[in-house]
Amino acid sequence: MTIPPGADALEQTVDKQTLRDGMAHVASAVNIVTTRGADGPYGSTASAVCSVADTPPTVLVCVNRATQSYSVIVRSGVLCINTIGPDDKALAMSFAGGTKDMAARFAGGAWGSAVTGSPVLDSAAVAFDCRRAGLHSLGTHDVLFATVVSLRRRDEASGLVCWRRSFHSLADGKDER
Amino acid sequence: MTIPPGADALEQTVDKQTLRDGMAHVASAVNIVTTRGADGPYGSTASAVCSVADTPPTVLVCVNRATQSYSVIVRSGVLCINTIGPDDKALAMSFAGGTKDMAARFAGGAWGSAVTGSPVLDSAAVAFDCRRAGLHSLGTHDVLFATVVSLRRRDEASGLVCWRRSFHSLADGKDER
Repeated sequence: MTIPPGADALEQTVDKQTLRDGMAHVASAVNIVTTRGADGPYGSTASAVCSVADTPPTVLVCVNRATQSYSVIVRSGVLCINTIGPDDKALAMSFAGGTKDMAARFAGGAWGSAVTGSPVLDSAAVAFDCRRAGLHSLGTHDVLFATVVSLRRRDEASGLVCWRRSFHSLADGKDER
Repeated sequence: MTIPPGADALEQTVDKQTLRDGMAHVASAVNIVTTRGADGPYGSTASAVCSVADTPPTVLVCVNRATQSYSVIVRSGVLCINTIGPDDKALAMSFAGGTKDMAARFAGGAWGSAVTGSPVLDSAAVAFDCRRAGLHSLGTHDVLFATVVSLRRRDEASGLVCWRRSFHSLADGKDER
């Protein structure tokens, strides 16, 4: 049986500011998404990352098509999602647009090269090295699906979330269950 | 210029447990996703929720196709994403499978009806009332895209994240910038 929503619900939507203010109350991890370009490494900060399925091991990241990194990821077909801890807040701000210069962004951290050749942040709490597996365009953004090729985890790392437009640290000692 | 990844990267993937252990280090909000069925309300807990675009106002949620709620959401075409705070941890555990009985799940909280007719949790930190806008299947899961019809926010609510398989509370006084 199909249950149609009311007529109002078929048309109504919230405005941009209402959505943004609402999403600010949804805590999210802070991630620097990197890739390798013909002229060097590229990267930008993304909050919209989540797990999709474990077989095949798949994650997704939402990327604004207007960012410098976007077209480079599409061309290279590879990306690394570096989930950061509290020590890299300044780095996240830089990759979020604090500076437009890629060399300057990468100079703020220590980087290695993952299996796919994407830059991996030495201090990341966890890094998902991926190849691009699909794409779903919606409005200004693309949802990139990515198959996880290799993964590096630092079990001693503290966590970091963005909530209500501020950073908040998470430490193992604060577990509630 | 297309830059092919190395041969290894074209085939290699991480195993299921490695992905799960890695994702446990990516903090996420805790959400109860509800819908209205012909025989009453349905809902389940989901961590994989994120913002996609603000025009049109779009969010996504990853749902295991094996959950009871999944087919009901597909039939009804509407859903409400209730992002919860620390007071509703027990409710989240119940909706995560602590009980299979939908009436028992819903009895654990106070619910109203959103514009689409989906159940909205009175105590939610923020609730996104949505109509389904698209779907992308991947492995065991579907990524449901949803247009936000109405939104309710409680500015006094504390936040809650799941990180390293434990709940952690967030309060405004702990802002770091």
